[in-house]
Amino acid sequence: MHPKKEVAWEVVELVDNAKREVASEAAMMVNDGEILGLGTGSTAHYFIQKLGNRIKNEEIEIMGIPTSYQSFFLARDCGIPLTTLDEHLPDLAVDGADEVDPDLNLIKGGGAAHTLEKIVDSAAKKFLVIVDESKKVKKLGDFPVPLEVIPSAYRPVTELVKKMGGLPSLRMAQMKDGPVITDNNNFVVDVQFKEILDPQELEIQLNNIPGVLENGIFPGIADQVLVATSDGVESIKKP
Amino acid sequence: MHPKKEVAWEVVELVDNAKREVASEAAMMVNDGEILGLGTGSTAHYFIQKLGNRIKNEEIEIMGIPTSYQSFFLARDCGIPLTTLDEHLPDLAVDGADEVDPDLNLIKGGGAAHTLEKIVDSAAKKFLVIVDESKKVKKLGDFPVPLEVIPSAYRPVTELVKKMGGLPSLRMAQMKDGPVITDNNNFVVDVQFKEILDPQELEIQLNNIPGVLENGIFPGIADQVLVATSDGVESIKKP
Repeated sequence: MHPKKEVAWEVVELVDNAKREVASEAAMMVNDGEILGLGTGSTAHYFIQKLGNRIKNEEIEIMGIPTSYQSFFLARDCGIPLTTLDEHLPDLAVDGADEVDPDLNLIKGGGAAHTLEKIVDSAAKKFLVIVDESKKVKKLGDFPVPLEVIPSAYRPVTELVKKMGGLPSLRMAQMKDGPVITDNNNFVVDVQFKEILDPQELEIQLNNIPGVLENGIFPGIADQVLVATSDGVESIKKP
Repeated sequence: MHPKKEVAWEVVELVDNAKREVASEAAMMVNDGEILGLGTGSTAHYFIQKLGNRIKNEEIEIMGIPTSYQSFFLARDCGIPLTTLDEHLPDLAVDGADEVDPDLNLIKGGGAAHTLEKIVDSAAKKFLVIVDESKKVKKLGDFPVPLEVIPSAYRPVTELVKKMGGLPSLRMAQMKDGPVITDNNNFVVDVQFKEILDPQELEIQLNNIPGVLENGIFPGIADQVLVATSDGVESIKKP
C-alpha cells in the first residue's frame, strides 16, 4: 500500500505552513539568470508558486525545467518560462522528498515522478531538497521504495524483488481503473524492505533488474536539505 | 555510427546459411510443452521459423513470449501460440547477439530490442544464444554498446557517457526522419568505448545513469552459446 497516513486537520495545516516556509526560503536562494529544475509534489508546488511571484515582483529572468506534467502545467500557469535539458542544464534543482536520512540519502517517488526527477535533479549543478520535519528519518525504508517498471516486466521484476527480501505492491490509481500509469507510460511498484542497510548498494541492485526504469532511492545526489521545523528552517549540507 | 559492414554477396550467403544452421540446431533442443522466449534479429528469425515448422510437422505444444514487435508478428505468422511473462516464465529463451566473448558476456541491441530481450532472456530458466562465427570476439567493445534512453534525458546521458570515456551517437532511423524510436518509445544511443575491461561493472555503471532504461551489455546471463563455424556448430557452455 502506498502510505497515506490519517492525520488531524490541525496537523495538516501545520505541515502545510511548514511546506510553504521552506518553499519560500528556497525561492529566495534563486539568483537572477539561473536555470531551475522544478520538482514535483506538494512542497515543490509551493516553491514554483513563490518563484512565479518573484518573477512578477522583481522582474528576475529565470527559466525552469519541469520534472513532470504537474510541474509543467503549474510553472506555465505561474508565468515561468520553460526550457529543456537539451538546451540548458539546471544551475539549481529544487525538489521535495518522501524520506531524508542524516547522510542526505532520499526516497522519492510518492508522486510517481522519480524517473524524470532523478534525471533533472542529478543533472543540476546543485540539488536542494525542501521538506517538512516529518520526512526526516534516521534510516530510510519506512516509506516503500517506488520502482518505475515496464508493464511487460511486471511479473519477473516482482519475483526478483521478493528474492531480495522486498514486499512489492503494484500502485493502483484512484481516478482511473487499474494501476497508476506514469508520465512515461509505465507501472509503479512500491517495495517495502525490512530494512535498508546500504541505500547506494540497493539503488544499484534495483536499477540492474531488467525492466526497472528507475527506482526512488536518491543516494548522495542532494547537496543541501532545508527542513521546516517548529523552530524555523534547519539547513543541512552534504558533509 | 551503427556498424553495417560492407560485405560481398557470397559472404552474406555463407553467413546466412550459418545462421540457419544454428537456428535449426536450437529449434531441435526445444521440448514438447515448453515456454520459449523468442529473440529478435536475423538469427532468431530463423529460429522462430524452424519452431513453427516443428509445431506443424510434429504437433508439439509450445508457447512463445516475443521480445519485440518483430518477433511477435513473425511468431504469429508461423503459428506459434503466444503468451506473456505475466502468465508464464520461459523454460528456454533463444536469442542472437552482436558480440559474444569467451566468458559468454554479450553485446546486444543492434536491433534496438535489448530492453525487452534482457527482460525475457534473464527471466528464462535457460538462455541459449545462437550466432554465426563473426560474432565471436576475444573482448567486447568493437560493437558499440546500445543504450535505450528516455528522450528528455538525451543530453545529460550523453554528457555522462563522455565523462566515462565513451563516444555516444544517437541512432538515426532510415525509413522515418530523425532518430530511431524503440518499441518502448525511447531513443537508442550507441556508445563506442575504447575498451571494455569489465563488462559487468560497465553494465552497472550504465544502468545507473538516470534516464538509461537498459543497456546492451548482457554479462553472465547466457547459459550456452551455439556458434555456426565452417566446421559445423560449436557449443560453448557457461563455465
